[in-house]
Amino acid sequence: MNAQMIRYILGRMLGIEGLVLLIPMLIAILYHEDSWTSFLYTSVILLVIAFLIGRKRPQDFRIYGKEGFVIVGFAWILWSLFGAVPFTMSGSIPSYLNAVFETVSGFTTTGSTILSEIEGMPYGMLFWRNFTHWIGGMGVLVFALMLTTLNDKNAMFLMRAEVPGPEKDKMIPQARKNALLLYVMYFVLTAAQIILLKIGGMSLYDSVLHAFSTAGTGGFSPKNTSVAYYDSAYIDGVITVFMVLFGVNFNMYFLILMKDIKSIFKNEELRVYLGIIAGTILLITMNITHMYGSVLKAFRYAAFQVTTIISTTGFMTADYDLWPEFSKCLLLMVMVIGACGGSTGGGIKVSRLLVMFKSIHREIKQLLHPRSVNRMMMNGKTITDNSIRGIYIYFFAYVIIVVISTILVSLDNYDLGTSFSAVLTTINNVGPGISKVGPTCNFGFLSPFTKIVLCVDMLVGRLEIFPFLMIASPSLWRKKF
Amino acid sequence: MNAQMIRYILGRMLGIEGLVLLIPMLIAILYHEDSWTSFLYTSVILLVIAFLIGRKRPQDFRIYGKEGFVIVGFAWILWSLFGAVPFTMSGSIPSYLNAVFETVSGFTTTGSTILSEIEGMPYGMLFWRNFTHWIGGMGVLVFALMLTTLNDKNAMFLMRAEVPGPEKDKMIPQARKNALLLYVMYFVLTAAQIILLKIGGMSLYDSVLHAFSTAGTGGFSPKNTSVAYYDSAYIDGVITVFMVLFGVNFNMYFLILMKDIKSIFKNEELRVYLGIIAGTILLITMNITHMYGSVLKAFRYAAFQVTTIISTTGFMTADYDLWPEFSKCLLLMVMVIGACGGSTGGGIKVSRLLVMFKSIHREIKQLLHPRSVNRMMMNGKTITDNSIRGIYIYFFAYVIIVVISTILVSLDNYDLGTSFSAVLTTINNVGPGISKVGPTCNFGFLSPFTKIVLCVDMLVGRLEIFPFLMIASPSLWRKKF
Repeated sequence: MNAQMIRYILGRMLGIEGLVLLIPMLIAILYHEDSWTSFLYTSVILLVIAFLIGRKRPQDFRIYGKEGFVIVGFAWILWSLFGAVPFTMSGSIPSYLNAVFETVSGFTTTGSTILSEIEGMPYGMLFWRNFTHWIGGMGVLVFALMLTTLNDKNAMFLMRAEVPGPEKDKMIPQARKNALLLYVMYFVLTAAQIILLKIGGMSLYDSVLHAFSTAGTGGFSPKNTSVAYYDSAYIDGVITVFMVLFGVNFNMYFLILMKDIKSIFKNEELRVYLGIIAGTILLITMNITHMYGSVLKAFRYAAFQVTTIISTTGFMTADYDLWPEFSKCLLLMVMVIGACGGSTGGGIKVSRLLVMFKSIHREIKQLLHPRSVNRMMMNGKTITDNSIRGIYIYFFAYVIIVVISTILVSLDNYDLGTSFSAVLTTINNVGPGISKVGPTCNFGFLSPFTKIVLCVDMLVGRLEIFPFLMIASPSLWRKKF
Repeated sequence: MNAQMIRYILGRMLGIEGLVLLIPMLIAILYHEDSWTSFLYTSVILLVIAFLIGRKRPQDFRIYGKEGFVIVGFAWILWSLFGAVPFTMSGSIPSYLNAVFETVSGFTTTGSTILSEIEGMPYGMLFWRNFTHWIGGMGVLVFALMLTTLNDKNAMFLMRAEVPGPEKDKMIPQARKNALLLYVMYFVLTAAQIILLKIGGMSLYDSVLHAFSTAGTGGFSPKNTSVAYYDSAYIDGVITVFMVLFGVNFNMYFLILMKDIKSIFKNEELRVYLGIIAGTILLITMNITHMYGSVLKAFRYAAFQVTTIISTTGFMTADYDLWPEFSKCLLLMVMVIGACGGSTGGGIKVSRLLVMFKSIHREIKQLLHPRSVNRMMMNGKTITDNSIRGIYIYFFAYVIIVVISTILVSLDNYDLGTSFSAVLTTINNVGPGISKVGPTCNFGFLSPFTKIVLCVDMLVGRLEIFPFLMIASPSLWRKKF
């Protein structure tokens, strides 16, 4: 293991966070808030640490998959631990554990909050809170790659460990150039949403924050009642459309740039993703129409909540915890499904589920016709047995972590709906759950132990399990570090 | 597809059920109950049907895997549909759907009941109810194999489709001889338990019924309050030990017969199974000691409930629905784990989980040391990639069926604990769940639709999914039948 290089990159990562913190500082100064100093102090601390541990250049610049996982895992943990400091230093979130929870929830684009009173927070703090979503959506490493000078091969190992979804190899070559291109598209889509929200009558500040939150599929809102605050069909509609868009594989936008529209329509993951959204909205609309008196109103709330949850954003326009159990179960289901691979969304990802469904289908065919040869195809390409196995192992590890986390959270002795949905919503990076962690509730009342478990789940979910399994694996540490 | 042979075997299967029904008829006559006639009439109906459709010998006696799955699937459905008739005909369970639920629950060794007042039922009926557990434990086909004259190759395809667990090939050759040997061991263990229960002061009738229930890992009891009725540490202890024994792979008893004790101690599945039991009992004992005032009492109830649920039996000595959420979550976990492969128990099976855990471990090793070659071993033998894939596909299909069933059951609009645990307890063939289907409750209040869903889950769980997926697969029916 190339420990020097790990130290070096982590040092530079902390320096970048120090620079990033100057942005919310400027916002705080703009709003004449005293809390700007807490951003400054944290920034200075980070820059000093970065200088101390990132100064000495390593002799050997080569890193491999192993180092990639370790760097990514620790980068996310460190960014969260330091990103939480301004909240506590300024007194906005007095408990440091709560501040860490909020920051992890931010960077991982989960959007679960421990705050009950959001609107009382300073503008600078709320900006930082939502800015973490925007950075975390693309990945903190990808963000850093855009700004630093790693060579492409090293960047590849970092991106492979961080970019969500099972097929990431297409975008890996020329990692730095792609990181930039990704951010351009990300920026353009975010800007478009800001403009459309502003047109709908939202203030510029709120538009920016909601766009950050939508782009990262995070879910933090500067309003206590989330998007329900505006009670506007137009704003609901704009956000619904953008949540769907940010849940799509960003390769689709590459294809648009290359004017290859045919490939988009042929993309199986996209079609299944849109099909699941449409089907779930239909079922929930039918299930809740009696509560809202009109199909149209029921459709508006159903469409918003389904897209906000399948894209793993987690805004709220209606208290779905009051909906019938059938609708709640469907929402829990799309929570687990999640968005498309290569998007900013979380969850298991549609493409993984698609591959697993196809393999069941192949198995049945094989049992019925033992001598037939059945290749598995996706988007016109054969899927190798190796990648199928990887997906299955991922899925099993995911289930095991959900089960163990639920058991640990159940030590708080809340009902199964609360424990189970708290774990599902955090590991899938959604935000709200059901019952006591429903859309109108917050996570502040949970025990410190549960908060730590959920923080781990958020990171595990965002980094797609393996970086954390590797950090936790004894055989990584057995050799001289 | 050899339709003639399917018809022929199913005809003979129905004839065998007709003969089997004469046993509870004799019990009913012994207790001077009028309801003996309903057994007789059903028996006559079955024998007539068997004569009509099973008389003509098929020209071609060859069957393969495909026919094996179809025969097994339909045999279980038909046995359940006809086995329910005496309950309704005698008026003991007036609703035929409820009677079918109870019979499916019996044959699949689930033990979920729709009865609230059990002790008022006639002796003959209660005997039949528990006898279904005993037959279902080994499998209705294996039971029939013992009595009929199929050749070994055909028997092999039937056993492969019915015997639980991923490794079934060891016992497949010489299927008929092995079916007999299995039943001898099954009979001996059952008899031993009857004697030990009788010594503990249980009546002979109750001893026999509880032994049937334990042997099949079913869970029906002739008492309203299940085993709690006796409130005897001795009886709890005897049943606890036998539940553990019936959850063990029956190959272990072959090994004892062959005096190969070393192989037993080396068996990884057995060690993990016992380890999970011990660990879970320890955690739950610690968690509930404050409720019972003494560690010993807490241990007694924890040990009974953990073994009854991991072996997927489902008796009750304590209302665990009143225990803390942590204990309840642990019980739900062992419910899903289930017993060992090749036992009468249900669940995913320890050996499958063990293989999946090993594959995660191998994946991490491979990621850390990409050039290393890691073979997966179990009990000293290499596991092929093919069987790993089969296990993963099984697991994914299992999860999908649990999710879909929970969503369907949630249409009844009960809390998540009720819907989710009702599905888990039926698909794993356990018996009781938590919340409204907890150990002191019953399944009678659920809607007819939910009862049908749960019946399917019980059969899907008992037959380990694939026979049912194949029957539901359009490509099975596409060709001329």
